[in-house]
Amino acid sequence: MRVIKAALLGFGTVGQGVYEAVRTHREQLKEKLHAEVEIAAVLIKNPRKKRNIDSSVLVTTDFREVLAIPGLEVVFEAIIGEEPGFSYCLQAIEKGCHVITANKVMFARYGNVLLEKAKEKGVFVGYEATTAGGIPVIRTISQQLQVNDIQRVQAILNGTSNFVLSAMREKHLPFEEALEIARQHGYAEADPGNDVKGQDAFCKLMILSRLVFGTQPDWEKVEVEGIGGLSLADIERADRQGLRYKHIADIYRDGGTLKASVKPVLVPPEHALYAVEGVNNAITIYGSLIGKITLTGPGAGKFPTASAMIEDFAAGYRPVPQLDAVS
Amino acid sequence: MRVIKAALLGFGTVGQGVYEAVRTHREQLKEKLHAEVEIAAVLIKNPRKKRNIDSSVLVTTDFREVLAIPGLEVVFEAIIGEEPGFSYCLQAIEKGCHVITANKVMFARYGNVLLEKAKEKGVFVGYEATTAGGIPVIRTISQQLQVNDIQRVQAILNGTSNFVLSAMREKHLPFEEALEIARQHGYAEADPGNDVKGQDAFCKLMILSRLVFGTQPDWEKVEVEGIGGLSLADIERADRQGLRYKHIADIYRDGGTLKASVKPVLVPPEHALYAVEGVNNAITIYGSLIGKITLTGPGAGKFPTASAMIEDFAAGYRPVPQLDAVS
Repeated sequence: MRVIKAALLGFGTVGQGVYEAVRTHREQLKEKLHAEVEIAAVLIKNPRKKRNIDSSVLVTTDFREVLAIPGLEVVFEAIIGEEPGFSYCLQAIEKGCHVITANKVMFARYGNVLLEKAKEKGVFVGYEATTAGGIPVIRTISQQLQVNDIQRVQAILNGTSNFVLSAMREKHLPFEEALEIARQHGYAEADPGNDVKGQDAFCKLMILSRLVFGTQPDWEKVEVEGIGGLSLADIERADRQGLRYKHIADIYRDGGTLKASVKPVLVPPEHALYAVEGVNNAITIYGSLIGKITLTGPGAGKFPTASAMIEDFAAGYRPVPQLDAVS
Repeated sequence: MRVIKAALLGFGTVGQGVYEAVRTHREQLKEKLHAEVEIAAVLIKNPRKKRNIDSSVLVTTDFREVLAIPGLEVVFEAIIGEEPGFSYCLQAIEKGCHVITANKVMFARYGNVLLEKAKEKGVFVGYEATTAGGIPVIRTISQQLQVNDIQRVQAILNGTSNFVLSAMREKHLPFEEALEIARQHGYAEADPGNDVKGQDAFCKLMILSRLVFGTQPDWEKVEVEGIGGLSLADIERADRQGLRYKHIADIYRDGGTLKASVKPVLVPPEHALYAVEGVNNAITIYGSLIGKITLTGPGAGKFPTASAMIEDFAAGYRPVPQLDAVS
């Protein structure tokens, strides 16, 4: 049986999820792709850390060694931050590899560059995992809504913020205590600034913007407000009125310009995002024919995010002529 | 520009929706298909009824006239009931046409026959519109979850029943009065038996069963119970306990057999279907990697259902060699 050689950049939670999912779903991948998928290399940062990686896999800190693997066809990128993620993805595409990324910060800024380069090289870039974890929002928009005009997207794109808001309301906790519980559950980073200040949701909204509207608004003009300004009293007052604060990323076209915001919004029970609780994410898509649909599910996590990457790969993969000469 | 000739079988709510959507989304279809879509014929039942159909379109009660259209490539079937829907679809496929159907009763029983015949003839059968109206559940399962093992599907598949349950709880109405409001809103048929007795949801569940598990359970062994047995007192008692009755279609594999049921289920607030209200439908899909995702949206209606048919068509269409000789 043919072997598809893949490399994994980063071996954090998501990287490990992909590594394990490829092993546990070997048969399903075979059935779909008529090929074995082999993780041939894992790029890591700290060579001294103990990892559960098969001895047949090249484990290296040197990206050049990864790219030098003969017949490498796919790169799964699960690194955090713009660099070196962007450079690695670009080099992989240049070399003729498909790229599947979970890196929202990088993709919000450089997605267009990667997509254009991929088109030029005849490979594909999968970025389902950048936005809303396991929820297949990217491919729902790009594949299931090709005729509908999408007019607006409203979404809860950060599970940490949503968890904190739920915990504040349900357990009557002030912000800091609710955040501490999120930390204890592993739902918040040691430094949760990107999550609770709205930057994480902002990146995902910009990725959706490019997909839906073909462009992004001026980043400086997008109103971004986190949940830190909400007091327990605010949330309890809303609750008594039957309302809830949700941290909503919103984008729509207003005349010739895109209006985008990421901020706490007070919503009534009939709002599609009112009932989205805990670490879930949800995306409401408004289309010209379909009306309004909402996708809800895990916005992060080892296997949901790995699911997005593996499904992206399985749906988009096709053998490509290797362009080794280019690198 | 190339023209794709299509025929429309049935000109009820859904048929009219498709007819209008093809006109209002002409540009989007052109962009996607690089072709004009022309509704060349509409098959009707009552020739005396006044209809808003362009005079250039063949309007006929004779299906043979439809099939005889030179170069016909696509048939949109929006008739109710097993026959003549099934025979027409089968003949269209035999002739080498793609078929897009919204006919759940027919497709629950004969879907396999049509899919196999279509494979043999090199055409495709789109059936997104048979299940959950505008919600792209069929293609989410078939295209976005190709690696995940789907373990279970739980769904609200009948908007009428869901509306009635919501109205009973919110407005403290007995079943018959809530149903009357559904009728006034156009959410219930004059004879709503198929909806409130669970048969409609059953058909959709059987369609999902074939898609997810490759087979259907013995129809006779599926527990099907409508919402008619629920009293206002039942619903109010549940409400006081913070619970809600939802009419849930459920299917999962239990060892070697499929367990399926369609019945009212008492669910707590943390259940994914608890907050689905009014005429909405929702489907929760449990996958081996993704965990649990829920799709919520309009389960019926002119344009949502037309959306499902048109999107199916746009995504699946490819020019086929006409096999006129076969008919």
